[in-house]
Formats: sequence, structure tokens, C-alpha cells
Amino acid sequence: MSVTFARGFEAAGVACGLKNSGNKDFALVVNRGPIQLGAAVFTTNRCQANPILWSKEVIRDSRVAAIALNSGGANCYTGPQGFQTTHATAETVAEQLGISSSDVLICSTGLIGEQLDRSKLLNGVTAAISELSSTGGEDASLAIMTTDSVPKRAARESVSGWRVGGMAKGAGMLAPGLATMLVVITTDAELTAQELDQALRAATRVSFDRLDSDGCMSTNDQVTLMASGASLLKAEYAEFEMLLTEVCKELALKLLDDAEGSSHNIHIQVLGAQSEPDAVEVGRAIARNNLFKAAIYGNDPNWGRILAAIGTTAAVFDPYNIDVSINGVLVSSHGQPAADRSEIDLAGRRVDIQVNLNSGTEEATIVTNDLTHEYVEENSAYSS
Amino acid sequence: MSVTFARGFEAAGVACGLKNSGNKDFALVVNRGPIQLGAAVFTTNRCQANPILWSKEVIRDSRVAAIALNSGGANCYTGPQGFQTTHATAETVAEQLGISSSDVLICSTGLIGEQLDRSKLLNGVTAAISELSSTGGEDASLAIMTTDSVPKRAARESVSGWRVGGMAKGAGMLAPGLATMLVVITTDAELTAQELDQALRAATRVSFDRLDSDGCMSTNDQVTLMASGASLLKAEYAEFEMLLTEVCKELALKLLDDAEGSSHNIHIQVLGAQSEPDAVEVGRAIARNNLFKAAIYGNDPNWGRILAAIGTTAAVFDPYNIDVSINGVLVSSHGQPAADRSEIDLAGRRVDIQVNLNSGTEEATIVTNDLTHEYVEENSAYSS
Repeated sequence: MSVTFARGFEAAGVACGLKNSGNKDFALVVNRGPIQLGAAVFTTNRCQANPILWSKEVIRDSRVAAIALNSGGANCYTGPQGFQTTHATAETVAEQLGISSSDVLICSTGLIGEQLDRSKLLNGVTAAISELSSTGGEDASLAIMTTDSVPKRAARESVSGWRVGGMAKGAGMLAPGLATMLVVITTDAELTAQELDQALRAATRVSFDRLDSDGCMSTNDQVTLMASGASLLKAEYAEFEMLLTEVCKELALKLLDDAEGSSHNIHIQVLGAQSEPDAVEVGRAIARNNLFKAAIYGNDPNWGRILAAIGTTAAVFDPYNIDVSINGVLVSSHGQPAADRSEIDLAGRRVDIQVNLNSGTEEATIVTNDLTHEYVEENSAYSS
Repeated sequence: MSVTFARGFEAAGVACGLKNSGNKDFALVVNRGPIQLGAAVFTTNRCQANPILWSKEVIRDSRVAAIALNSGGANCYTGPQGFQTTHATAETVAEQLGISSSDVLICSTGLIGEQLDRSKLLNGVTAAISELSSTGGEDASLAIMTTDSVPKRAARESVSGWRVGGMAKGAGMLAPGLATMLVVITTDAELTAQELDQALRAATRVSFDRLDSDGCMSTNDQVTLMASGASLLKAEYAEFEMLLTEVCKELALKLLDDAEGSSHNIHIQVLGAQSEPDAVEVGRAIARNNLFKAAIYGNDPNWGRILAAIGTTAAVFDPYNIDVSINGVLVSSHGQPAADRSEIDLAGRRVDIQVNLNSGTEEATIVTNDLTHEYVEENSAYSS
């Protein structure tokens, strides 16, 4: 499955020695056409890794023939030497495949501020090209893993027969030392570059952008969509956006589920907002509140921390007309306690928070994890 | 010392049964004049506790004759019944002291969403009034403690002889279940209401407002300054602002030092900013980054996380011309690594981060704590 579920793509995942463990650490996905289009969204962090700087140039003309991804190093804050490493990787892929380096996207993940071993990486390119296959998607999804305990893959097929497949790694607590999310999604449907870009932005806006595991924005995040047209089927745009969104949501939830340090998945649904950005702002404020996240870890329905977090936002609401429910139990309404907190059962992994701002009809759901001993442990000694 | 170091003030701290432990939980500070002026700053959280709603009305005319503070309950999201409890406390203080309830400030700290036991609280008023004394400042500073391990007090005397004294409790990690900071500062200098307000805002802006232990804003924060004029000495404004700022900074650092869950005090100095708000924004982004805070806990100089945090801000800078030092070791400059991270020693409690944005001459220092196992532990089961 993964990125080779869609026809027209070949992939490989190899070990080139960037990871001390000897595990697979270099992935390559190649689009054999007949069309070679792509779209991508990038981290909005202003301190960006070299592969981000490179890929932003590559995506300008919407032509993408291949994407190379390495784990074992972020290649961020590594200066001109680091940029040359990214450039050399793209050049080597291009030369060996007979394509242009300006059609090769690059992604990296790992520690910031350490140079990648360029010769190991370029040997990885050669090894991956020799192993390219139309069933290589699984190997590729393994090669981008860092502290992920399982590879994340998703796939959908339309009624008419075109396909969408994807792979993902990391994200905040899920890969806590890295805080980096890399996603590659492929399709064999026929779509225009403009349709691909529009669909990717629409799908990520309600999936990966609503996943906020630990509030820490990466320097390396990249979500890429590539289209081969190999099904020779023209996709109806609305249907494509829907299936793409399903794939993105499935991958996002798999990232959340594999949060190694976490013990709860927390779904924060904000209703009754005057605008969707208001709902997102309120949900994100709750998702980033350490006191709230630690309380959930302790199965403690300390709902005052939810209201204290809501009160830090600029969203439209009357502070004394907000309804808060935890796992279906209304705990506060009209600025007062409602049901007793002892009625709430937080034993399960999934926790549902529902906040009604009573100020409109817009809504959004942010998903996050709890703040645990294991999160602190995994993040307290990553680079040393 | 504490709030009765300044002449003209009496104080008391008693146990009225709000805390299950039986420890002191009600404090009263009374201004015997000859002048009875006050100024206060409040949490900017929009979800505010009942004592905040009350005290904001009291402070309007700058006349303050007394302040009553309880631990053992925040009286927040407790509705009309909770507001009546605050009102009744002020009325009882006023009646028994022969003053107006509109000159009585109220502060509360503890769990959100639980009603205070009003009869216990009012008995506390009577007991405190019977124990009022000009040496009661220490008892008062004990009565506002929650999970603080030591009371926090500070005092200064001017060359000409007027005095400033203060007490503080809590703040984020320091009182993790409560996330509440209450501060009372007294002076026997003669000052106008406008001077008191101006000096308090200037002093808190560079002290308590720069303390960001866990990024969680309280519903109950209140910093109050009261002047009695009992020294019969007119303070020179600049000298008063200076000594008041010293008292505020000393209390803020004592809050930081007593962070029960913490193992490091982290001073984040941001230099070379185009504006002071830019410097504060960058410092705060670093102070709120869980990955950075967990790394410091593990004595891991993972400086990439500092840059990743800086990159989330809107401050003016060139991302590839930022200097980052940890404990005096320059680790990144011009978008590249500088000294090897192994040169950094993070064994001590104090950690100094210096960031130069190379974009101007403004600066600010934010102080914070690390993210530790103990922080998670203390916050995972507070209300249950």
C-alpha cells in the first residue's frame, strides 16, 4: 500500500548509515508519469531547514518527478555546507534517474544543528535507485521512521478506480526528539496542478493542521502530494478532495495514536464559535495548556483549567456563558459548576472535550495528547 | 518584615478550615493611614474569578483600606453564589473594622469551580481581626501559601527612611495545581494615587510579567500596592519606582526559586531586538517550548529547539543571523553550529540562555523553569 498503492509510482527504502541503529534511513519515491505534477505545504516556522529552502524552489513550477527523504538528521542550521548536501542529494537523484534536479523534492528529519554525512547519503541514493519498485511503498514508509513504533500508511480507491496512497512519520510527542512530521501522498488520478494545490491545502487544513500534540512547531515539516495520472482517469475535483482529506485524517490520527509518550488521545471539539478561526484558536489554547494536559494524564477532570485556557484567547464569547463537557458530562455552564466532576470516567485512551462558546455556528476539532512522565523522559535527553 | 515592615499597616494570618491540612488559610492586611491609597494589576485572563471582578470595582477610586486573601479555593466559576461569598467577606471585614466595603480588596487561590465554605471564611475574618498587629506580616505571608515550600517576603528602606515591604505566593509551576500568583506590597511613603499606579505598572512589567514558569495564565492573579503615608515622608517618584521594582524582582525570583517541580531556573536574555515587545515575544516563545524545557531538565544543550521556538514568532530578525549562547558558550551563529555542544555544562540550577537577534538595541529577560517529571506528577492529580 503506502505511496505505491497509486499506479505510476516506484519507491524504495534503504539503510545508508545515517542512523546509528543500522535501520532504514533513506527513502525515495519516483513518479513515472505520464504526468509529473506535485503540490506541497511547508512548516510556517521562520527558522527553516535546508531541505525546506530547497523544496520551496522545486515546487514553484508544480513539476515533481521524485522525492528523497532521510531520517537521522534534520539538516537545519547547518549553513552553506548543509544546503550543498541537500543540493547534492537532488543532483545525484536527478543524474541517476535522467531527470532534472529542479524536479526533485528533499525532506530530512532528525537533530538540528548537525551536518549530515554527505557520502553516506549519496550512497543511499544509489542503493535506493537500484531497489526502486512498484511495491516499494512499505520499505519507504519504514525508512522515514524515527521514534515511531509503527509505520503510518493509508490508502483509498475511488468508485471509478483511481487511487490515493500515503505515508507519514513523527509529529510532536509522537517523535518527541524530532518534532517533525513528514508526509508523502500519491495519486494516479489526472488532475491539474491548481487542483492538486487546492485539494492539498483544503485537506491539510482540517487534518494535520488540527493535530497539536505538544505545541512545538518544527523546522522541517513538509506534506507533499504527487500525481502520476497513471490511472488514465480524470478525477472529479470534489471527490478527490474528499478522498484526499480522508487519507490525511487517517494518517493524522495514526500519528496521534502512536504517541509513545502519551496515555490519552484528546479530541477537543469547539462549537458555537462566531468563526472557524475562533474555534481553532480556542481548541489550540486548550491543547497547549500544560496544566490541562497533565491533569488528563492523571485522569483528573480538572475543568477549571479548560476555562482558564479559553480565557487567554481573543475569540468572541461571553466568559460566563460557556458550556464545557468532558466525555459527555456537562461540568460547567453559565459560569458555574454543573454535574459533579466525580461523574466523569477518564480511564479510556480517548478523551472527548466539548466546548460550546454559544456565540455562533462555526466549529473545529483539535486533537492532542496528554503531558506525561514519558514525554518528559523522551525529550530530556535526545541529543546527548 | 513582609507587609508590616512599612509603618501604618497591621496584618494577621489565621486558619479558618478552608485547607484540609489545618494550616493557615486566611490573611488580612489593614492600612491604618494617615492615607489609604492603593493600586492593583490583575490577570488578563478573560475568565476571571469572583474576587477579581470585585477587586476591579474596589480599585477604581484608588481608595484601599484593607485586603483579605484566602487560600483553599479560587472562587472562580462559582456563579452568583461565589460572588456573594466574596461580597460577604468584604462586608464583614468592613463592618468589623468600621470602614466601607468598597475599600476592601479580596483575593482567593485554590481549585476552580468549587464553592468556598462561606461560614468558615467569615469566621476567619473575625479571627484575623482579633489578631491584627503591626508584626503580623509573617503570619499573613504564611496564610497565603499553597504548595509553596517557603513564604516569600521582601523589604527595602530608602535613605530618607520610608519603607516598602511585600509578600507573594505561587505562580505556575511553583504552585502547580493553582497556577495563581498573589502579591501584596505596602509602603509608608507619601505618594499620590497616580504615582502608585504608574510605579506598580512599571515595576510589574519588568518583574512578574517576565516570569513565565509554565505559560499557563491564571484566573486569579492580582498584585496590589497599598500606601499608608505613615512615615510622613514624601517619596521622590524615581526612587520609589526603583525600590518598588527591586521588591517585585526579588519576590519574582523567590517564586522561581521555590518551583517545587523544577530543577533549573532558566534566564532567557534576548538582545539586539528592534523593539522591547519583540524581545519579550522571543523570550516567551522559548520559555513556553516544552521540548526546550524538557531538554534543559535532562541537561541536554539541544540548541536547535531554541531556534525552532524563535522561528514561531513575528519578531523582526534574519533567521540565519541569530546568535545563541548557552551558559556563555556560543553554540550557533549565522545559521550554523559554532562551539561544540559538549562544551556546555548544565549541571547547575541556573541556566543562562542568550539570544542576539542582531536587529536593534532593545532587550528583555524572561525567566522560566524546566519541564520535569515532578511538574507532571504534581499537576496530574490536584483536584482528585
